[in-house]
Amino acid sequence: MSPGRLETFADGVFAIAATLLILTVDGAVEGHGADLGESLRHAWPSYVGYVVSFVTIGIMWTNHHTVMSLIARVDRRFLLANLGLLMCIAFVPFPTRLLAENIRGDGAESAALAYGFTLTATAVFFNLVWFYAERGRRLLRADADPRIVTGLNRTYLPGPWIYLGATLVALASPTASALLYLAIAGLYVFESSLFGGRTATD
Amino acid sequence: MSPGRLETFADGVFAIAATLLILTVDGAVEGHGADLGESLRHAWPSYVGYVVSFVTIGIMWTNHHTVMSLIARVDRRFLLANLGLLMCIAFVPFPTRLLAENIRGDGAESAALAYGFTLTATAVFFNLVWFYAERGRRLLRADADPRIVTGLNRTYLPGPWIYLGATLVALASPTASALLYLAIAGLYVFESSLFGGRTATD
Amino acid sequence: MSPGRLETFADGVFAIAATLLILTVDGAVEGHGADLGESLRHAWPSYVGYVVSFVTIGIMWTNHHTVMSLIARVDRRFLLANLGLLMCIAFVPFPTRLLAENIRGDGAESAALAYGFTLTATAVFFNLVWFYAERGRRLLRADADPRIVTGLNRTYLPGPWIYLGATLVALASPTASALLYLAIAGLYVFESSLFGGRTATD
Amino acid sequence: MSPGRLETFADGVFAIAATLLILTVDGAVEGHGADLGESLRHAWPSYVGYVVSFVTIGIMWTNHHTVMSLIARVDRRFLLANLGLLMCIAFVPFPTRLLAENIRGDGAESAALAYGFTLTATAVFFNLVWFYAERGRRLLRADADPRIVTGLNRTYLPGPWIYLGATLVALASPTASALLYLAIAGLYVFESSLFGGRTATD
Repeated sequence: MSPGRLETFADGVFAIAATLLILTVDGAVEGHGADLGESLRHAWPSYVGYVVSFVTIGIMWTNHHTVMSLIARVDRRFLLANLGLLMCIAFVPFPTRLLAENIRGDGAESAALAYGFTLTATAVFFNLVWFYAERGRRLLRADADPRIVTGLNRTYLPGPWIYLGATLVALASPTASALLYLAIAGLYVFESSLFGGRTATD
Repeated sequence: MSPGRLETFADGVFAIAATLLILTVDGAVEGHGADLGESLRHAWPSYVGYVVSFVTIGIMWTNHHTVMSLIARVDRRFLLANLGLLMCIAFVPFPTRLLAENIRGDGAESAALAYGFTLTATAVFFNLVWFYAERGRRLLRADADPRIVTGLNRTYLPGPWIYLGATLVALASPTASALLYLAIAGLYVFESSLFGGRTATD
Repeated sequence: MSPGRLETFADGVFAIAATLLILTVDGAVEGHGADLGESLRHAWPSYVGYVVSFVTIGIMWTNHHTVMSLIARVDRRFLLANLGLLMCIAFVPFPTRLLAENIRGDGAESAALAYGFTLTATAVFFNLVWFYAERGRRLLRADADPRIVTGLNRTYLPGPWIYLGATLVALASPTASALLYLAIAGLYVFESSLFGGRTATD
Repeated sequence: MSPGRLETFADGVFAIAATLLILTVDGAVEGHGADLGESLRHAWPSYVGYVVSFVTIGIMWTNHHTVMSLIARVDRRFLLANLGLLMCIAFVPFPTRLLAENIRGDGAESAALAYGFTLTATAVFFNLVWFYAERGRRLLRADADPRIVTGLNRTYLPGPWIYLGATLVALASPTASALLYLAIAGLYVFESSLFGGRTATD
């Protein structure tokens, strides 16, 4: 299988998962009472959840592309690691809805844990995908820029720990945990804006 | 990232958002009473909403393509602006359903405002995408036709104001506001029919 | 816009509309009572509807490809006609669900009319797409095979009338109308099997 | 129609069907009572179902690609067989949800049968697709590697029988049947991990 074929399939899953996030907002307003304006205001966590998860999936899509642009060929184990990653990405709309609906209620802790563990698992699979390809330059293109490779090594490794940390904070305070998820997404955007003058594969 | 890759992802989001609009119609007929014919007739605003939003998303997809055909390269800020745009596009099915279900009831004003603000935000991100690329010809191809560039400048700039105006009309009359959204989509179609003899990237 | 770009977008809508048909089956079994086996047997019209609409959308997708393979360029009117066609295709899951749920009840006539009018409108837009491109060979490739062109002319023209006829039968007997929709899809499959030895663009 | 065009459409259906599996999980938690944590734990069969079906669809997607990489041209019968295959793939989210929701209740047998028959039908269509193309090398590329062709012949032929066997086990024990579906998916993953050092088209 060519890397291009895998990318087409992956792009499809990323795009569909992101677009299905709207069902989060749909669900939050569906059971509204008499006053639509009131229920639209009350549903604000679902808008935040929509934006945070959309940005998170979007950033992961760009990162996935960066990885694929360095890949010369695809073997079955790499394919499996990618399936695992996409399985996590397609899962994201579910805990997003959970967190948006429960952040102000008794289920806040469970919802924040569900969201966090999903993103932790996603980050773990991202590392599997990348380091399986990178170890001994197993699947890398001959002309893969060593600085980009080193940069990705440095960027991906802490990912699972950062998300795991934010997840465990939920045991003390689900709200703090949710704010951390927001902050991580915000950081991605900020970092991209700051260094955005370079082309996207830098 | 090549412009082509971004387009594939964007095409996916545009196509899925447009196709998910059918859930608007589904929802409008779901709670029907004894007589299906009656409830199908009663659901007419959802058909109008389906058509208006489908056409609006379709036109935006063609405009997005026109922009991308002028782009030589993609940097991270441009990518972020595009993510914001796609986030708005994927959001459209939600206010479409709101407006279709509430235009004849107490929630008409809230629903018309929700629809209008979504399209205003979409137009704002369209301007961000375009003018970020166009300023100083930052991301444009060397052979980008100056007349098309000037034409897009003139076309996109008023977009947010037109939608914001139609949105604010909802404070006086939600029905008038909804008719304006319809008229704007109709205008796109009319203008395209009138000048349609030229090829689509003109 | 290149024909290839339009095809990518159209493929997305065709694929999503076909895949969303599963919600028809989902809905038919959802409100089941105590015995799952019984409710699965009771839901048989939704399986028939799923197959008929999936095959219909699939055949239309192949036909759309045949048209696009003859097209040299795309103008805005052609684009609009295609948007209209895709709007109808994305609509198909809705009347499919209506017909599957109501064929055995009071709403059979309304549901059969809704299904039929949707497919009639789809056939009308198919004719608009094709004959706009074909008239005076406006958008056709210079090397478009005249026999294929003549063949498509002969094939597409009766489409709306066939579907309109089957639709109007619903006024007398919704069941007969539903059987006609089934027969039309079956005919496509049969004809394709019979003459299938030729390559798909014949 | 070029094989590439068919692949794009098929990729769309595979990706959407896989991503829609999340609705399985959504549905399992939706009717939860007071305690979210409890209902999230109670919904564990839906997570298993999500993973098993996602992996199964993912493996089928890679197999479909292997077939398509050997194909020189597409005729209408081959197209029809592919439509049948995609119709089964798009159906998978439905029995997945059934099985996840009913494995612990009275409907376990019906649900396990529904899941099994769907996968059996999928395997049958996979054989139709492959052997229609392979018989007399009807649609194969001139340079199709005979060892891969023989390998696929050996791999695909037992598929329907394996799934039919696992399905019929449901008549004695739905749980055993569900464990077999799990084991089959696990086997695919294990086999891919074991022989994964080779490139994905081996």
